[in-house]
Amino acid sequence: MCSIYNIYNCLYKLYLMKFEKTMGFYDSNRMGDILFIFHKNHKKYLNDELSKYNMSLIHALCIIMIHESDELNQKDLSDGLHLTKSAITKAVKKLEDEGWILRERSIEDKRHFILKLTDKGNDFIPIMNDINKKWESEMGLYELDPNFMQIFNELTHRAINLNLKKEMKKD
Amino acid sequence: MCSIYNIYNCLYKLYLMKFEKTMGFYDSNRMGDILFIFHKNHKKYLNDELSKYNMSLIHALCIIMIHESDELNQKDLSDGLHLTKSAITKAVKKLEDEGWILRERSIEDKRHFILKLTDKGNDFIPIMNDINKKWESEMGLYELDPNFMQIFNELTHRAINLNLKKEMKKD
Repeated sequence: MCSIYNIYNCLYKLYLMKFEKTMGFYDSNRMGDILFIFHKNHKKYLNDELSKYNMSLIHALCIIMIHESDELNQKDLSDGLHLTKSAITKAVKKLEDEGWILRERSIEDKRHFILKLTDKGNDFIPIMNDINKKWESEMGLYELDPNFMQIFNELTHRAINLNLKKEMKKD
Repeated sequence: MCSIYNIYNCLYKLYLMKFEKTMGFYDSNRMGDILFIFHKNHKKYLNDELSKYNMSLIHALCIIMIHESDELNQKDLSDGLHLTKSAITKAVKKLEDEGWILRERSIEDKRHFILKLTDKGNDFIPIMNDINKKWESEMGLYELDPNFMQIFNELTHRAINLNLKKEMKKD
């Protein structure tokens, strides 16, 4: 057996050990567990990139949601992001204090406030797109087999449908 | 064009609309966003199944981690699950109150407590395995192209490595 083979074998073992360590107690043969780890690492990457702007993923998601909708209030953010009222209140306060968003009194209902992006907030949208593209490029997603993406999409549909079916049974 | 085609077309459009609604403001063409939704729906399914045992995913993960390790305390749970100290304290209290786990004074350091499963707690391990298997079966994972799982595993490795590389740069 040549030494190059041994070196590769050794490196591969180290790689597996590193993987096992990062996977922790999760089962690397179980799809749900891998999904968990994959998602966690995606989130970690985004949070790390966003920290350069003194932001977290929650803040970024708030800004994107406000950007996508015209008449959005704190409750919509809380519902849309499945986060507690207090987490959203905290995030909105920070975003307002730092000049990313502002609150406007609703024309329809003077008691309510709707959220709007400031110019600084609007400038964040292309930044977030660049962060997403950087991750996709570093992950090599542009060279992926289109067949993979199709199955990945189908599985996500199935995961959504399993929950929808359950909800329909409950109603 | 035959009417059967129209019906299918109509159903497909409804299906897409339902998908768009559940995806919310996420971009269904962006892998990171699909990953987010996939993970969220997996979590939702597990939480729903676990609610039959008056449990949430956090509780289940605590029990599994305690099962996997001999000398585990609250800090290890908090570190391993990337959850705040207060979230773990709350979960551990509930698990203890309901008889899933118990606290034992550490032999090595009398000031510290280690967590152990009760018989009820041990009986939960096969229940969790069954829940995982039920999801996998309902998702049709056993009929998946092995090539898909290989790419999925590789991508997860890459996502982990991107973060490890960043951490190494920081050190």
